[in-house]
Amino acid sequence: MIEPDASRLDPALQADIEALRGQTAETRRATVADMEAILHQPFPVLDHGFVRVVDYMGDDGAVVQAARVSYGRGTRRVHEDRGLIRYLMRHRHTTPFEMCEIKFHVKLPIFVARQWIRHRTANVNEYSARYSVLDREFYIPAPEHLAAQSSDNRQGRGAVLSGSEAADVLDILRGDAMRCYASYERMLAEDDDDRQGLARELARMNLTLNTYTQWYWKVDLHNLMHFLSLRADHHAQYEIRVYAEIMLDLMARWVPIIHEAFQDYRMGGLHLSRGALGVVRRCLDGERVTQADSGLSPREWRELWAALERPAPDAAD
Amino acid sequence: MIEPDASRLDPALQADIEALRGQTAETRRATVADMEAILHQPFPVLDHGFVRVVDYMGDDGAVVQAARVSYGRGTRRVHEDRGLIRYLMRHRHTTPFEMCEIKFHVKLPIFVARQWIRHRTANVNEYSARYSVLDREFYIPAPEHLAAQSSDNRQGRGAVLSGSEAADVLDILRGDAMRCYASYERMLAEDDDDRQGLARELARMNLTLNTYTQWYWKVDLHNLMHFLSLRADHHAQYEIRVYAEIMLDLMARWVPIIHEAFQDYRMGGLHLSRGALGVVRRCLDGERVTQADSGLSPREWRELWAALERPAPDAAD
Amino acid sequence: MIEPDASRLDPALQADIEALRGQTAETRRATVADMEAILHQPFPVLDHGFVRVVDYMGDDGAVVQAARVSYGRGTRRVHEDRGLIRYLMRHRHTTPFEMCEIKFHVKLPIFVARQWIRHRTANVNEYSARYSVLDREFYIPAPEHLAAQSSDNRQGRGAVLSGSEAADVLDILRGDAMRCYASYERMLAEDDDDRQGLARELARMNLTLNTYTQWYWKVDLHNLMHFLSLRADHHAQYEIRVYAEIMLDLMARWVPIIHEAFQDYRMGGLHLSRGALGVVRRCLDGERVTQADSGLSPREWRELWAALERPAPDAAD
Amino acid sequence: MIEPDASRLDPALQADIEALRGQTAETRRATVADMEAILHQPFPVLDHGFVRVVDYMGDDGAVVQAARVSYGRGTRRVHEDRGLIRYLMRHRHTTPFEMCEIKFHVKLPIFVARQWIRHRTANVNEYSARYSVLDREFYIPAPEHLAAQSSDNRQGRGAVLSGSEAADVLDILRGDAMRCYASYERMLAEDDDDRQGLARELARMNLTLNTYTQWYWKVDLHNLMHFLSLRADHHAQYEIRVYAEIMLDLMARWVPIIHEAFQDYRMGGLHLSRGALGVVRRCLDGERVTQADSGLSPREWRELWAALERPAPDAAD
Repeated sequence: MIEPDASRLDPALQADIEALRGQTAETRRATVADMEAILHQPFPVLDHGFVRVVDYMGDDGAVVQAARVSYGRGTRRVHEDRGLIRYLMRHRHTTPFEMCEIKFHVKLPIFVARQWIRHRTANVNEYSARYSVLDREFYIPAPEHLAAQSSDNRQGRGAVLSGSEAADVLDILRGDAMRCYASYERMLAEDDDDRQGLARELARMNLTLNTYTQWYWKVDLHNLMHFLSLRADHHAQYEIRVYAEIMLDLMARWVPIIHEAFQDYRMGGLHLSRGALGVVRRCLDGERVTQADSGLSPREWRELWAALERPAPDAAD
Repeated sequence: MIEPDASRLDPALQADIEALRGQTAETRRATVADMEAILHQPFPVLDHGFVRVVDYMGDDGAVVQAARVSYGRGTRRVHEDRGLIRYLMRHRHTTPFEMCEIKFHVKLPIFVARQWIRHRTANVNEYSARYSVLDREFYIPAPEHLAAQSSDNRQGRGAVLSGSEAADVLDILRGDAMRCYASYERMLAEDDDDRQGLARELARMNLTLNTYTQWYWKVDLHNLMHFLSLRADHHAQYEIRVYAEIMLDLMARWVPIIHEAFQDYRMGGLHLSRGALGVVRRCLDGERVTQADSGLSPREWRELWAALERPAPDAAD
Repeated sequence: MIEPDASRLDPALQADIEALRGQTAETRRATVADMEAILHQPFPVLDHGFVRVVDYMGDDGAVVQAARVSYGRGTRRVHEDRGLIRYLMRHRHTTPFEMCEIKFHVKLPIFVARQWIRHRTANVNEYSARYSVLDREFYIPAPEHLAAQSSDNRQGRGAVLSGSEAADVLDILRGDAMRCYASYERMLAEDDDDRQGLARELARMNLTLNTYTQWYWKVDLHNLMHFLSLRADHHAQYEIRVYAEIMLDLMARWVPIIHEAFQDYRMGGLHLSRGALGVVRRCLDGERVTQADSGLSPREWRELWAALERPAPDAAD
Repeated sequence: MIEPDASRLDPALQADIEALRGQTAETRRATVADMEAILHQPFPVLDHGFVRVVDYMGDDGAVVQAARVSYGRGTRRVHEDRGLIRYLMRHRHTTPFEMCEIKFHVKLPIFVARQWIRHRTANVNEYSARYSVLDREFYIPAPEHLAAQSSDNRQGRGAVLSGSEAADVLDILRGDAMRCYASYERMLAEDDDDRQGLARELARMNLTLNTYTQWYWKVDLHNLMHFLSLRADHHAQYEIRVYAEIMLDLMARWVPIIHEAFQDYRMGGLHLSRGALGVVRRCLDGERVTQADSGLSPREWRELWAALERPAPDAAD
C-alpha cells in the first residue's frame, strides 16, 4: 500500500495538517479505522501534486443498510452483507453505492483538471485565480514519461523520447513555464508610483497549462467508481491515471468489500460485443474461427484476443 | 425545538436504534455535537411518518474551508468565518455549500414521495415493493387539515371541511385504503394447494397513494436548501411542508451559522420583479402609486403589498 | 416495425394530433424523414397507455459533427461516419451521444411512473393531480401477464396464474380501482348547499397505483440508451419493458446507425466478470473447467453458461 | 440586434456554413423563423471567438404545451399562453422551461472555458488537444479592457491601465503566447531522422490559458437562463459576459415571450434580504432609517441603496 508523505508541503501546511489530525471527537456515525489513520494526510502524485482525504461518509455497511432500507447499521452478518454487495455490483444496482460520500483535496496541473472536471456528478471548489495568486509550480514530466505521439492511436503515446530530444523538450517546458510565470508576476505588480498592476482575473491568462491548481472534490461512491473505471484504465492519460490509482488504493482502505467486488465485476472484467460473444461461443464449441469469418474488423479481432490474453487462432505460428 | 420521539416505532426497531446510538467511535472528521445528540432518532411527522438523520458530513467550518481551498478546518476565527458564509449566501456562491452532505431516513405517504422525488439532485434508496411487502399503514389527515378545494387557486386549499363532510371523507379514505390493503394481502397469499400468490411487483398496484413507503435520502447542503426553500414555503402542500419544516429545524442544529444566513438571505427575503421594483422606487420617492398606473396586473399588485405586509396605497380606507 | 394507432384516443384528441401533423415548416436543422413520418402519433402500450414522439433534435450526423467539433453536418462520407460512431460506442465515448435529444409524451400507470422517474437525467412534466382531475383509467393486466411470485428470485415473476386464481385477481383489481375512483369523484364533488368538495391535492391520495398518469419526458440520446439498456432488458418488470421496447424501435427510426452500434456493443453483448473471464480463458485453452474449481459461485456459474447459451462443461449428460 | 458575421472565419469554413444553410427540409416540429434566419451563422465575440446556434428544439409554445401536458401545440390563444408563461416564471415553476433545448458551437479562450464548464447541467464536446493540434489563436484584450486589480473587490477590476502600462502588458501577453505556441509546434515536430515528436497530449501543456479552444454546448432553456442570470450579470468577468450577452440576444429571437418574462421576473428584478425588506417596509411607512439603526452592515446598506438607485436616507447632502 502506498503511504502518505507530507514532506513536499511547506512547514506551515504540515503543521496545519498535524493540528487537524490532533483534533478528535466521539461520533455515532459509521467510522472506518483505516481511513482515520490517513485522514488529512497528503499522498504525493507527479512532481508537485497530491491527494488528501478530507472527509468521508459511510462504509461497506452503509450500502447494505440503504439497500435494505433498514434501521440498523447492517454489519452484523458480514457474510450476508458481502453477498449482497457483490449481488448489487454484479447486477448494476447502483443507487445503494451513492449512499457513501468522500471528499478529497487535490493538487493537480491545470490540463489534468480540465479532463477531470468533465465528470459532472461531483462537487468542486477550485482555488480561484480571480481572487488569489497561483503558486509558481509547474508539472515537468519525468524523462521516462516523455513519450512520442503514438503512430497508430491518434490520442495515445508511443515510445519514450530519446535522450537528446527529451532534454530539449524538458528545457522548453521549464523555460516557457518559468518565463510565463515571471511575466504573470510582473503584470500583477503595483508600485508606489502610477503602476496599478493588472487585474488577477486577466493576468492568469498568461500561465501555461502545466501550472498547478488545487481543489476540493467531493463525490459519491458510485460516481467515484465510474471515474476510476475510466481514469485508472490504461487508455487514460498517464497524468490523470496516477491520481486515479491512488484514489483506488484509498477506496480499498475505506470500503474493502466494495473495492473487491468492484475489481471482480467491473475493473477486472471484460465487455464482449455481440460479435465478440459470437466468436467466443464458436471457439467454445471447438470451432477454429479466423478474422475473415469472424464478422469482426481486423482491429476488433486484435483487441479481442489481446483482451483474452491468448493468440488469435489465425495468428501466424 | 422539536424533539425526537421513538414511541410510534415498534419495540424491536426502538431497540435497534438504541443499539446504534450506543456505538461510538473516535474520529478526526468534523463533528457537530448537536447532531450527535439526535443521530438516528426519529422525529414524528404526520400520523405514521418520521424523519431520522442517519449520517452527516461537514459543518459550518467545512464550507469555509472549501471556499478558501485551505488546509485547515477553518474554525479558528469564528467572526471571519461567519462573515464569509454570509457573503457566500448573499452573492449566491453556491458550490461551497455543496461540500456538506446529510443522509435522512424518511417514512412518508406515496403521494408525498411522488412530489419529493422530483428533486433530482439527491441520492435515494426506496423500500422496494417488488422485493418486499409494504406495511399496512396509510396517511389519514387530521380533521383540521381536511381542506376544500381553493376557489381562487387551482392548486391550493380553501376552508376546512365541515364536520359532517369531513367525517364522510375520513370514512372513505380509511375504508378504501383498508379494503385495498386487504385485497393486496389476499392476492399475495399462497396456500398448500394450487394457489401460488400474485407477484409482489403486480399486487402493489392495488394500493392507494396514501400508503406509507420509506427511503434513505442523501443530499448536499446546497440542494437541501433549494428543497427547503420550495417545500418549507407556504405554497407547498401541507403534507410535504411538515417534513421540510422538521428538516429545516435539523439543519439549524447541524450548521447554525449557515442556517441563520439562509433565513436572512433566502427564506426571509423577497424577490421583487422589475415591475415591483419600479413601484417600490416610486413609493420611496414619495409618489402615490395606484394599481392602474403601476404597470402590474391586479394579482401582482395584490401579491406585492401582501408580501410587503402593507395596505396597497390605493386600498379603500 | 410497430405502427402508430390513434384509435384509443377520444376523437377530439385525434383531431388535435391530425391538426398538428398538418402544420409543416421549412427548417435548416437536421431532419429525419422516418421521424417526421410518425411525429406526434401515438403508439399504444398496455391497455390504455401510449408513447408519442413530440420533438427531436439531431440525427446520426449530429453525433459525428459534435465528436469532430466540426462546422459541417458530417453526413458527407457515410462510411467514415459509421466507423466513427461505432468507435465511439465501443470505447464508451459517451458525450457525443448527448448531442441528440428527444421528447416523448407518455401515458403510463402510476406504479410504472414511479420506477421510470428514478432515471434522474431527464426532463419531466407530469400531469398535475393537484391542479386537475385524473381520468378514470386503470391498468388491468392481460391474463397472460398475471404471474405468480417467482420462487427463486425475490423480485421477479414465476408461472402464469391459473384460470380461477387469475379471474379472482382481475375481479379484485378492477373492483378496487373502480371503487376508489368513485370515492375520489364523490370526495371532489361540490353541491349547491354547503358541500365544498375536498381539495384535489388531498382527494388524489385515494387512487390506486394502477391509475394512469401522463407526462412529457425529454432526454438526450446517451441517457436514453442507458434507460433502454436497463428497461428493455429481460430483468425489467414487464410493464415498463413494453414502453422501453417501443422506444427502442423509435430510436431505430431516428438514428439507425447509432441504434445498430448500440445493439452490437451494448444490448447484444455480455459483460464477463474477472472470474468469468478466467473461466472462458481456461476453456479456450481446452481445459475442462467445473464449477467447483471455477472460483465462481454456483449461481454465477449457472448465469455464465446461460449467457453463453452453452451447457456448463460439468452439466450432467 | 446584433448581426452574424462570418468574415473572420477562413473561406473553407465560410463555404461549409453556406452549404449547411442551403440545405432545408420540411418538418412537423415547432419551428421559429427568427432562428432559421440565423441558424449556423457565427456571431463574433472577443478577438477570435464566436457563438453559432447549431440546432434548437421547441419554442414559446412548447413550454405551454408541456406545462399543460396537452396534445396540441399550445399556440392558439397567444394571450393565455403569455399569461401562463409569466405565471410559471414568476412562481419559479422551472420544469416546463426544461422542455426547450438549444445547441451552440462556441469558440472561446481556455480560461473562459474553465469558468463556463462549471455549469454542469449541460452537454459538452470540446475540441480535443489529445487528438488534434490547436490553432495559433490567443485572446489579447483590447486596451480599453486592460483593467487594474480592483482595490475594494478582491475578485474584480478597477480602472483601465495607463497607456504605457497597457502597452507593456500587451507586449507580454502577445510575446509569451507566441513563444509558447512556437515551442508547442517545435515539440510536436517529427523529422525524417530520429526525431519522433512529443505526444500531443503532453505538448499541449505548454500552451497559455488565453489560447482559443472550441466546443459544442447544448443546454435546456431553464439551465440556459440560470447560466445567463449569472454570466450576463455585471459581477461576471467581462470575457465571459460578452458571450452571455450574445446568447441572451439569441434567446430573444428564439423564445421572445419567455425572454420578456425572464427580463421582467429574473434579470431586471431585485432580491431583498430579510434585513433589506425590513428597511424598505420602514421607509414605506415614512420612517427615516439610517444605516446605524437598519440592522444592515455598512456594505449591505450601500448595496441596497445602489440597487434601489436612490441615495441612502442618511447620505450626506
